[in-house]
Amino acid sequence: MNRVFGIDVGGTSIKIGLFEEGGELVATEEVPTGALLTEDDFAKVTGALGRVLEQNGAAPEEVCAIGLDIPGPVDAEGRVGMLPNIQLDDKGLRAAIQDSFGAARLAFVNDANAAALGELWQGAARGVGSAVLVALGTGVGAGVIVDGRVVAGAFGAAGEIGHLTVNRSETRVCGCGRCGCLEQYASATGVVRMYRERCEAAGATPVPLTGPTDTLSVFRAAEHGNEVAADAIFSMADYLGYALAQVSCVIDPEVYLIGGGVGKGFGFFGERLRSAFRHYCLATSAGTRIVQASLGNAAAMYGCAYQALLARS
Amino acid sequence: MNRVFGIDVGGTSIKIGLFEEGGELVATEEVPTGALLTEDDFAKVTGALGRVLEQNGAAPEEVCAIGLDIPGPVDAEGRVGMLPNIQLDDKGLRAAIQDSFGAARLAFVNDANAAALGELWQGAARGVGSAVLVALGTGVGAGVIVDGRVVAGAFGAAGEIGHLTVNRSETRVCGCGRCGCLEQYASATGVVRMYRERCEAAGATPVPLTGPTDTLSVFRAAEHGNEVAADAIFSMADYLGYALAQVSCVIDPEVYLIGGGVGKGFGFFGERLRSAFRHYCLATSAGTRIVQASLGNAAAMYGCAYQALLARS
Repeated sequence: MNRVFGIDVGGTSIKIGLFEEGGELVATEEVPTGALLTEDDFAKVTGALGRVLEQNGAAPEEVCAIGLDIPGPVDAEGRVGMLPNIQLDDKGLRAAIQDSFGAARLAFVNDANAAALGELWQGAARGVGSAVLVALGTGVGAGVIVDGRVVAGAFGAAGEIGHLTVNRSETRVCGCGRCGCLEQYASATGVVRMYRERCEAAGATPVPLTGPTDTLSVFRAAEHGNEVAADAIFSMADYLGYALAQVSCVIDPEVYLIGGGVGKGFGFFGERLRSAFRHYCLATSAGTRIVQASLGNAAAMYGCAYQALLARS
Repeated sequence: MNRVFGIDVGGTSIKIGLFEEGGELVATEEVPTGALLTEDDFAKVTGALGRVLEQNGAAPEEVCAIGLDIPGPVDAEGRVGMLPNIQLDDKGLRAAIQDSFGAARLAFVNDANAAALGELWQGAARGVGSAVLVALGTGVGAGVIVDGRVVAGAFGAAGEIGHLTVNRSETRVCGCGRCGCLEQYASATGVVRMYRERCEAAGATPVPLTGPTDTLSVFRAAEHGNEVAADAIFSMADYLGYALAQVSCVIDPEVYLIGGGVGKGFGFFGERLRSAFRHYCLATSAGTRIVQASLGNAAAMYGCAYQALLARS
């Protein structure tokens, strides 16, 4: 039977998913890795893949496709670009995996794109032709799906909607060197910063926060009636709705899927986001659906497997 | 031999192009039409198609595909949406053409998308995988090409980059009912309006203009050293560069093609546009090419033919 691996590569660990070709997730395993630069590092990965197969009574020859995601740009040809946030020799890892699984087709995909593909294959975007998965995490990224395929971009920058300019008056500089990016308001960091700033402006004491990305506490405070917290979240939803209205003027997708850590608060801000989008969008696109992504952290793993299957055909 | 018709449908006339399947333009004819609502109107179109074939020694059975463009939304399934700017019964016209050319596959396409496809097939975007054709005319539209195919959008609104918001402080209302759209600055009307406003503010007498879309006179004035005219055109280029930088954050195309009536002044504003784009874009996309479209008014005709060929396969 044909098997597929979807491997979500992070900075400190990898999440391995073993799938059947039809999309059923057979087994998962998370393996701490750290840097992936040497033959020893790569052996940790291939060893883990072998163990998962063995535990599930499958042989290496049955693996027809292996997809890996990367927290950085991957262009339309599958070439990996600069990886500022992770220590990874992608060419070395590719060679090591190919050595162990000669029958498998390997594919790399950007992590936000992987999550979008996962939702398309087995999640909230199943059966949809065009969709944008918006990952609201430490940063803001997106996976853009058109005609059932992920759009990588000529320079691997498709879906960089975290860097749409939403406030031309902003003077604070974004990580990208520009000012007024969506990411400055709709990332976990952005929500917490806006909350703290508004507490200070209102002379209110912030609720205890575990760190600069602890949006969960801000959401909880808002749910318990904290107006400053609600205000910060609604600002986030307004900026995001504005940005998605711009995206619709470019590719006009059928549905937006809201995921990532901040996306977990969708129940709280979803309606506000929808009304902001309808306020800012062209009338033609007012019917676009905005829903919560459904596969959570596993989305990327699914999407890696799916991309590898697509690349094979 | 297989022949293809590309028909650029306008409000007062249609431009017919007869092509060979490989893309060679064999003959063109422009036919005044006016409204296309009755059987008599449709007969003008089918009659003209028949004449063009006869003059070129081809038979109706040789026509394998016919594409028509529409100045309005066409969704991913080829369904025509509301057509505010033209009197056209698209279903009636389709039926009449199909009656005369039973062997041909018919396809409708949005006019900006048609121009993009034309440039992709036989123009400045030949051999390119992803491109955006920006049509700067009375309005501002765009045709978005990803992986060699036009992106129509779930609601037919893909490529509506004329309605990207580029100035959130604008109070003047755009035709779409929103404020601060690119079209308010980068259309022919927008350039002429900015020029007149700046003349008034500077106490300068505007050069004679033939009407509210006479950008040609503004370009000429600028070329002859008129600083107010140059200033209006550079503002246009700045807004456009800003908007294209947003587009690159969504789909990151390989190349932008600047067309339409205002696009004819590309020699004058092209460098300014490129530097505005590089100023506003994510560093990753700085290498994106921005060039003048090459097929001029014939682009849509080419694109109609190409879309019909694509739809056939």
